[in-house]
Amino acid sequence: MTRLKNEGMAMPQDLGADVNGTRTGVLFEQPCLLFLGDVTDPDDAKTAFGLRDWAGAHCVGQYRFSGAAVDLGLQDMTPTEAHIAGARSLIVGVAPMGGKIASSWIDPFTAALEAGLDIVSGMHSKLGNITILNESAKRLGRRLIDLRHNDRDWPVGTGLKRGGKRLLTVGTDCALGKKYTAMALAQAFAARGLPATFRATGQTGIMISGGGCAIDAVIADFIAGAAETISPDAVANHWDIIEGQGTILHPAYAGVSLGLLHGSQPDAFVVCHDPVRAHLSGMPHMPVPSVEQIAALTVELGRVTNPAIRCVGVSLNLSRVPIEQRARLLTEYAERLSVPAFDPMLGGIDAVVDHLLATDA
Amino acid sequence: MTRLKNEGMAMPQDLGADVNGTRTGVLFEQPCLLFLGDVTDPDDAKTAFGLRDWAGAHCVGQYRFSGAAVDLGLQDMTPTEAHIAGARSLIVGVAPMGGKIASSWIDPFTAALEAGLDIVSGMHSKLGNITILNESAKRLGRRLIDLRHNDRDWPVGTGLKRGGKRLLTVGTDCALGKKYTAMALAQAFAARGLPATFRATGQTGIMISGGGCAIDAVIADFIAGAAETISPDAVANHWDIIEGQGTILHPAYAGVSLGLLHGSQPDAFVVCHDPVRAHLSGMPHMPVPSVEQIAALTVELGRVTNPAIRCVGVSLNLSRVPIEQRARLLTEYAERLSVPAFDPMLGGIDAVVDHLLATDA
Repeated sequence: MTRLKNEGMAMPQDLGADVNGTRTGVLFEQPCLLFLGDVTDPDDAKTAFGLRDWAGAHCVGQYRFSGAAVDLGLQDMTPTEAHIAGARSLIVGVAPMGGKIASSWIDPFTAALEAGLDIVSGMHSKLGNITILNESAKRLGRRLIDLRHNDRDWPVGTGLKRGGKRLLTVGTDCALGKKYTAMALAQAFAARGLPATFRATGQTGIMISGGGCAIDAVIADFIAGAAETISPDAVANHWDIIEGQGTILHPAYAGVSLGLLHGSQPDAFVVCHDPVRAHLSGMPHMPVPSVEQIAALTVELGRVTNPAIRCVGVSLNLSRVPIEQRARLLTEYAERLSVPAFDPMLGGIDAVVDHLLATDA
Repeated sequence: MTRLKNEGMAMPQDLGADVNGTRTGVLFEQPCLLFLGDVTDPDDAKTAFGLRDWAGAHCVGQYRFSGAAVDLGLQDMTPTEAHIAGARSLIVGVAPMGGKIASSWIDPFTAALEAGLDIVSGMHSKLGNITILNESAKRLGRRLIDLRHNDRDWPVGTGLKRGGKRLLTVGTDCALGKKYTAMALAQAFAARGLPATFRATGQTGIMISGGGCAIDAVIADFIAGAAETISPDAVANHWDIIEGQGTILHPAYAGVSLGLLHGSQPDAFVVCHDPVRAHLSGMPHMPVPSVEQIAALTVELGRVTNPAIRCVGVSLNLSRVPIEQRARLLTEYAERLSVPAFDPMLGGIDAVVDHLLATDA
């Protein structure tokens, strides 16, 4: 996969800083060591890939139990080696389905605390709830940082129209490019001098951008309200580029996706899709929906809070498609939805921004 | 409104008992005093109405700050009078949008504790988080019972097919009859000797049936998984009658409704509708969707976990429709969706059960 650099991004602030009023102060100390442990499925390591690709300058290396684990192409390091190289935080770069902290990770995490690193996690399970880690952190003066959680009381959604424009990335499954697409779009806006802000809705986006809300960790009644809050009223020509989550046709996570759609009240959306994925990630009994189905349903459901919602692009994850087949696929999908198609890691995003602006009311 | 009696209901167990493994022991002591306080909108008092209508034998009276508050038609009592009449619990019968406990309720709740009553709440705000109530309860040996919350870790949804049949009540808005419809259907199944179980997904249903899960209080990633859990694998001819929540086109709560739909994997659904409601409850800027739109979207979205999903009835809340107009409306809506139409408080439910069984594969 091509390595993009996080330069000129329209990020709210630098890695680890405060934004949106959802947190205060520095989220975590940099630079970081990326923990991969024993995870072998790249789909479960999207946090690590996201940090490597969008905040690579802040990552000193990777920490794997063995060579069988996912390889980011970074230098393998122990926590002690990473601390010598300057690291101050160990970031849990993996998130298996359900977001649990494996028992086999506890001893290595304790070793990281002893080596002088804080631990940063975006898992559902809280580091702070694990007694032995809590005790070690206290004894050593280290921090356990659970980014997926915060104590904020989110409001109930209102559905009221806010100022400014919004684009949401939606998808046909989890873990296929919604965050990368949103970040690349924010970067493209910034490159043109257009006012835009990336809005993170997952732990990796929060780690990269320093703000937002892990929308899947909010109490169910407040999903849309949280989405409204992190994309607040803005001046008329400002664009929020909002990171999507899951898919509205996912048997486990569709509620998150739909609440995020309603709260985001997007004027525009981009459908993100992996053309070689045969079934939903981790669910061999569940086919991937078509881009047409997702686009049509997103319009029908999204009209509740924005009657002007429209599809402006198809983002294809071509990382597993042979090079010689990519142009054909881009043409095919562009024709299927009558909008520009692109892979944010391979370019072509200008056509989407052009189309977005040309069709903007 | 007609008063139905909770006789012959296919409830898992009696009011306040354990069920589904989601709780153990008696939920709360009976009989109860229903707290209405200063709430004047009947839509905000659906918990009180639900208990009056489905567990009336366990309700000794109502507790209102003044005659301006919602009137259940029960005897007005102070907590002390209710205790003398046998009451052992004060049930918070009101749930304004957002589920917060008003500051003006604290002193009356303290008085109730002093009068010898436990306090039972289904609000998002926890009684247990209010220091003065906590201290009073401890001092007096009383219990504060927050039914909307539990400490259970719900699993991620799987979308895997379970044994048994399921019916879900869906709606065009909140608070218009999804719980009543489900309970009336469970009652109708029981009257025919058909194996069926009511599954509560909200605080009122939990209070009445003694089990279930307040699905809107679950962490967003686990909505569908919680719905799968409370409607577990069953024998082939058993029906779970599942209480619906909100509407899939609600700007605040649609995520809850969609996760519940996917986790319930219903074979059949009934669309619940209030034909005189002009806009969504509490949202004058939001029109009520049509029954056709809800039925079509429920089928399209519900197919993810049950390709055989079908609409089997329309439940109309005719409580605010003049008597002479009711028959015409029932005919109109039955024709619009080509299924039987009924009001569960006025009868006609047998036609739905007949239709359900006749169309059952």
